[in-house]
Amino acid sequence: MFLQRGHECYFSSVTHWTNVYGQLVQSPDKKQAFSFQHSYSRVIEPESQHTPSGPFMTFKFYNVEIRDRVKCVSAVDGVPISTQWGSQGHYYPIQIAQYGLSHYSKYLASNEESRKSTFLENGKFSNLWNVHSCETNSNKEILSYKCDNSGSISMPIDSSLKYEHFSVDWKISKNSTLLLVVEVKGGETFNLYYVQSNTLIKSRGNNIFYGFGKKSSGSDWFKLTRNIAIDVLKGMILRKPKKMKKKNKILVNLLKIQFFGNGAIDNMTLSNQAHLDYFYYASKWLLLNQDKSGGWPINVDRNLANGELELSAGWYSAMAQGQAMSLLCRAYSRTGKKEYLEAAKKAAFILSTPSSKGGVKAKFADKYDWYEEYPTQPPSFVLNGFIYALIGLYDVYTLTEDQLSGKLYSDGMESLQTLLPLYDSGSGSFYDLRHYSLPGTAPNLARWDYHTTHINQLLLLNTIEQSSIFTKTAARWVGYMKGHRAKHN
Amino acid sequence: MFLQRGHECYFSSVTHWTNVYGQLVQSPDKKQAFSFQHSYSRVIEPESQHTPSGPFMTFKFYNVEIRDRVKCVSAVDGVPISTQWGSQGHYYPIQIAQYGLSHYSKYLASNEESRKSTFLENGKFSNLWNVHSCETNSNKEILSYKCDNSGSISMPIDSSLKYEHFSVDWKISKNSTLLLVVEVKGGETFNLYYVQSNTLIKSRGNNIFYGFGKKSSGSDWFKLTRNIAIDVLKGMILRKPKKMKKKNKILVNLLKIQFFGNGAIDNMTLSNQAHLDYFYYASKWLLLNQDKSGGWPINVDRNLANGELELSAGWYSAMAQGQAMSLLCRAYSRTGKKEYLEAAKKAAFILSTPSSKGGVKAKFADKYDWYEEYPTQPPSFVLNGFIYALIGLYDVYTLTEDQLSGKLYSDGMESLQTLLPLYDSGSGSFYDLRHYSLPGTAPNLARWDYHTTHINQLLLLNTIEQSSIFTKTAARWVGYMKGHRAKHN
Ligand SMILES: [Ca+2]
Ligand SMILES: [Ca+2]
Repeated sequence: MFLQRGHECYFSSVTHWTNVYGQLVQSPDKKQAFSFQHSYSRVIEPESQHTPSGPFMTFKFYNVEIRDRVKCVSAVDGVPISTQWGSQGHYYPIQIAQYGLSHYSKYLASNEESRKSTFLENGKFSNLWNVHSCETNSNKEILSYKCDNSGSISMPIDSSLKYEHFSVDWKISKNSTLLLVVEVKGGETFNLYYVQSNTLIKSRGNNIFYGFGKKSSGSDWFKLTRNIAIDVLKGMILRKPKKMKKKNKILVNLLKIQFFGNGAIDNMTLSNQAHLDYFYYASKWLLLNQDKSGGWPINVDRNLANGELELSAGWYSAMAQGQAMSLLCRAYSRTGKKEYLEAAKKAAFILSTPSSKGGVKAKFADKYDWYEEYPTQPPSFVLNGFIYALIGLYDVYTLTEDQLSGKLYSDGMESLQTLLPLYDSGSGSFYDLRHYSLPGTAPNLARWDYHTTHINQLLLLNTIEQSSIFTKTAARWVGYMKGHRAKHN
Repeated sequence: MFLQRGHECYFSSVTHWTNVYGQLVQSPDKKQAFSFQHSYSRVIEPESQHTPSGPFMTFKFYNVEIRDRVKCVSAVDGVPISTQWGSQGHYYPIQIAQYGLSHYSKYLASNEESRKSTFLENGKFSNLWNVHSCETNSNKEILSYKCDNSGSISMPIDSSLKYEHFSVDWKISKNSTLLLVVEVKGGETFNLYYVQSNTLIKSRGNNIFYGFGKKSSGSDWFKLTRNIAIDVLKGMILRKPKKMKKKNKILVNLLKIQFFGNGAIDNMTLSNQAHLDYFYYASKWLLLNQDKSGGWPINVDRNLANGELELSAGWYSAMAQGQAMSLLCRAYSRTGKKEYLEAAKKAAFILSTPSSKGGVKAKFADKYDWYEEYPTQPPSFVLNGFIYALIGLYDVYTLTEDQLSGKLYSDGMESLQTLLPLYDSGSGSFYDLRHYSLPGTAPNLARWDYHTTHINQLLLLNTIEQSSIFTKTAARWVGYMKGHRAKHN
């Protein structure tokens, strides 16, 4: 009787010692349940000042690829494929940038032990390979092979090696196929095939196929690095979507590595982690897919506020621009390659272009610039995406002193310090200001993981701006998660 | 365990059939209690379109004079004296205007029966008077009397007459004093003295003294209309502030009317109600106390937001201006006296003057005009006071087509339709936008009686503007009182 649907009561006593928060939800049987949640976006005080080469906010806790809305990680270019707002799957630059930033941050947070690799091959023939109906040839650099239709080279793996990440430098040729035989905890065995196809993922019983693209015979070497557990999981979800949809991490054992057809390999490894590879995949994708305006168009339609705000496929997002900038700055910092920095700088142009002219810049009350995650007309004023844009601008400006980025950053920072109060609901935060743009509409309260994102963003900004506005707001917003609320008069 | 301090849970099942709402409050013994409240400002659908001569919003339910912060109703000029923000008491134009508007609205809502008066005297000598050591003289118009130091004329009252309101036209002379002997339900008897003094109220045991001012002997006739129950109650509170502070209405019996000294009387009545008298007292006070800028300065210091926003005695309030305009328009409508309308028109000038120049007009984001209940710098953007200003402007413009009032009204209406969404907390409303003006500060949630005021104001405006913004917002805000809240994403 006391607790209403949609009405949340918090248990500060519980929160204190478990860092758990919960809320009343409508369970499928229409009864109310109290749902506890460990959010990956929990509030965490920054350990150090934000820099354009350092870890990105709390992204070391993000696991982008495991999310429901990632259909799979493409074997063509190594980046996640999103099913958000389009079930057929699309390249969603925000997701790709977050994938890169999370792996970069995880890499920086990891110690030597956790980076451990097992070098099964280093160009030198190993007597562990079973050769069946193939010619092989190895110099000290590489191993090439040429197999009959029924032939293969294969290597059984010691099942005590629990490494999830497989990597190989591969020069493909006729019929090149890689098979990883993987046992899932519980006993079922899956065959992970990596094949010459443009079909990103396909599932047939226990056979899961990843296409690495229709590369021509005799093409360049490419590096294939795969998270075996994720590859199996996404195949399982494809086979039984309902049963597997909410499945978290699975445990796998690699049993066998097997190559068919013709090709050459080098630097084959199994390892604890391969964060830098995934980071570079994302960085390269952004570099190669930036358009001539410096943007990454998003190729699905999007509607907000029950269709009152709409975007047609091909829109830009300030959040994509900002997170791409942050990722590209880190790619530059790591590699020294100027092309990354140039791409990051170019990305600012879209932020300076009004939404009405195909960009993402809105104005609040004709005065305050706002870089729109969703550049709808009228504007939606999403908070988190705007702040990510500011962080991207800061990263670029810090590395380049680029005038445009510097101006966009300081204008945006003024807007944020002015308008941030309008996102305070007195017991949480608003996700956006759609209710301002569409008067009469209900405000869109941020769910708790966005609320924590807001807080983490303010804590990050406070390491570079030292603003009492951010300090006080973040402290109060943390209080809201413990059930505190602003006073009434 | 479930319910936190400051966290309100509503009982929609209860609300449905009792129109009661409640909230968790900290009771004096530091335990939590659930407090039910019948608010005088409950949400009520307007019965008819708002007009400048009609009833004012839901004010017929207001009982201004009984409020704690009314020290007493002055016998000098018949208006309430406020102790808000100044315990010595001051004339608070908002309270005075509300007093007038509530009595006017009560009058219009009342039927003939409830206006019933008992004419004890109509200039003609009545044999009910006991004359003791006085000379009396009556023509058909008046009764004059001239008593010795120990003399008086007095009249016992039939205790079956439960009328609360006493009224007399009085021409005072030497030592004129009126005594009303009143029995309070429960048995205690009080002597209510009305005396020539500037001390507004004084209490000595069971003797309560109201000063009607140091009028010179032979001055004009004046009308003294008193609510006997209120006059006793305020005296009782003065005597035992702690015990009586929260005391509501008391029931009284008038036992005796007694005049001492010299004087003349006419039109002495007892009645069920005297709303028009109280309405005219307030209207006249505003007419006589308007300064040459058209304003009613407020003569107490005021601070908001823990002293971050301050006003020094002498400030104007947009709410005072607006409510005075509404009252004066009604006084004009009732009497046809142009001076009321001229005063109402003149009141607009203060609304057009920026706070920085001694007026009350602020700007939101350099763009939207806001008439400030509290013209602080930076602005506080109080919602309810602003809307009362708009209503006052509407009333004046409707009666006069005054250009200034029309312009101020339409500018303000644009501001309201634009900024109203910013007062929506998703589960209630904000009282003001102090958190915008003082970034980092917590928002100031409106307590439920202000929230209902906001709703009633929107319903009123909707009778003259027919805006879907007001309709939708009011409906959602009513929902919040039943425990509904905006969705999260
Ligand atoms: Ca977002
Ligand atoms: Ca007020």
